Amino acid sequence: MSADISVIGLGLMGAALAGALLDAGHRVTVWNRSADKAEPLVAKGATRAATVAEAVAASPLVIVCVLDYPAVYEVLADVPLEGRVVANLTTGRPVEAREAADWVTGRGGDYLDGGIMAVPQMIGRPGALVLYSGSRQAYDRFEAAFGALAGARYVGDDPGMAPLLDLAMLTGMYGQIAGFLEAVALVESAGYPLSEFTSTLLVPWLNAMAAGQPEWVQSIESGDYTTLVSNLEVNRAGLETLVRTFREQRVKPDLLLPMKTIIDQRTARGHATEGLPSLIEELR
Amino acid sequence: MSADISVIGLGLMGAALAGALLDAGHRVTVWNRSADKAEPLVAKGATRAATVAEAVAASPLVIVCVLDYPAVYEVLADVPLEGRVVANLTTGRPVEAREAADWVTGRGGDYLDGGIMAVPQMIGRPGALVLYSGSRQAYDRFEAAFGALAGARYVGDDPGMAPLLDLAMLTGMYGQIAGFLEAVALVESAGYPLSEFTSTLLVPWLNAMAAGQPEWVQSIESGDYTTLVSNLEVNRAGLETLVRTFREQRVKPDLLLPMKTIIDQRTARGHATEGLPSLIEELR
Repeated sequence: MSADISVIGLGLMGAALAGALLDAGHRVTVWNRSADKAEPLVAKGATRAATVAEAVAASPLVIVCVLDYPAVYEVLADVPLEGRVVANLTTGRPVEAREAADWVTGRGGDYLDGGIMAVPQMIGRPGALVLYSGSRQAYDRFEAAFGALAGARYVGDDPGMAPLLDLAMLTGMYGQIAGFLEAVALVESAGYPLSEFTSTLLVPWLNAMAAGQPEWVQSIESGDYTTLVSNLEVNRAGLETLVRTFREQRVKPDLLLPMKTIIDQRTARGHATEGLPSLIEELR
Repeated sequence: MSADISVIGLGLMGAALAGALLDAGHRVTVWNRSADKAEPLVAKGATRAATVAEAVAASPLVIVCVLDYPAVYEVLADVPLEGRVVANLTTGRPVEAREAADWVTGRGGDYLDGGIMAVPQMIGRPGALVLYSGSRQAYDRFEAAFGALAGARYVGDDPGMAPLLDLAMLTGMYGQIAGFLEAVALVESAGYPLSEFTSTLLVPWLNAMAAGQPEWVQSIESGDYTTLVSNLEVNRAGLETLVRTFREQRVKPDLLLPMKTIIDQRTARGHATEGLPSLIEELR
């Protein structure tokens, strides 16, 4: 079923979103501050709106994807939002999403916030994911349209939840990247082939370790940090060996050091026999 | 084909190694400082040696798994090693492995160092892996026996290579754990179900990201850090948003901070348009 959808903001991501909607057969109206960005989309069948107000008036669903939240307010200022669903896919913080929800609903609109787990090249292809939070009704109404952009998932009525989970996934990714960079730098220092190390040793190992994380969650939720495998004392000694090896190989262990600090700290506080999941207590 | 193998050191790991060899039908001689640790293995068919020298004399392959490298020297002091293969699976640093190789070969033995990528419970089961480095001839001679312990892989004649790659895999794991703990702490602060987040969002995302790492290696090996996706400036802004969100949610971002520092540093040095793999230059 095709829908009328307006897309405001045609940067790399906004243009990718509008393009995927056109590919899926929706009637798409677009607006961008510098109008030339609309041209390739108009060539694909989009309608160019002369003003933001015209774009918002054209469709019940208005997707906004601009630089940041201040730009959202700037663009939508003085535009009537009555009866519109505003799906704001602009990147930001949970508090900003909650403020934007209040602002939009205060003007008679319905609000959804979105966290895009993809680069523009992935939009409309398998593997891309967008998390939505805010108005459940709005989400249900346009779920099919959202499905044209990426895998779509509603994560709750707190508008801040989608950006929060988005940021949490990025957090996990940055940790993995930090470990990857340090591991590769160490292997490079010993002259072992990096591609062989990464493809045949590191990646299968990390995937096997990631598969164990749901079990860690049980430990964190119950507060029972008993372990049959490697306790904090074993890991404390392991990280000492690790950091010493980095120094001997003349590689900087900077990205690993806070892990060592936190394990030392937790062990010193009398938790040496607990498992690694207990480290979360030091972050709360 | 069953072989004569001696196992010296019957801690949790040593006992697991000896048990797996017995299960595979090898003739196993064991020795441990406190003799009672040998009893369950003797009940399974192992022969208990009265002295280390007797254990070493009993088999052409001697597997050593003790607390640390100083303990290796203490245990093997004054024991003739002529014609023996010493496979030292004790945890240690690459420099310690190289020293131990010199020490053993200086006494007429052949040396292999091993890095065990498993906890004792995994020995003899699928998924466990032991890396070996040092004498290729020794490895080839006993490859079948090593296969009874875990997946076995020879990684080169530098005896320090197995422990180095072992430590590099642990490095990657610690990074992943750091990211996991921070991500879970953030999600917990917002009251979203941790198990749902971990199983359905984080783990698939991390596996997808890990699959991209071989491509990063190409970038690192070529020194060409051009990126079509997210450059360091985008990531710099992303980490700023992230750290601000952690503070707003009252979660400590300690494990993430050096990633922020290194990206800020690399960006300030004029590499804002490069991709994340270029961060390795700051670790060398």
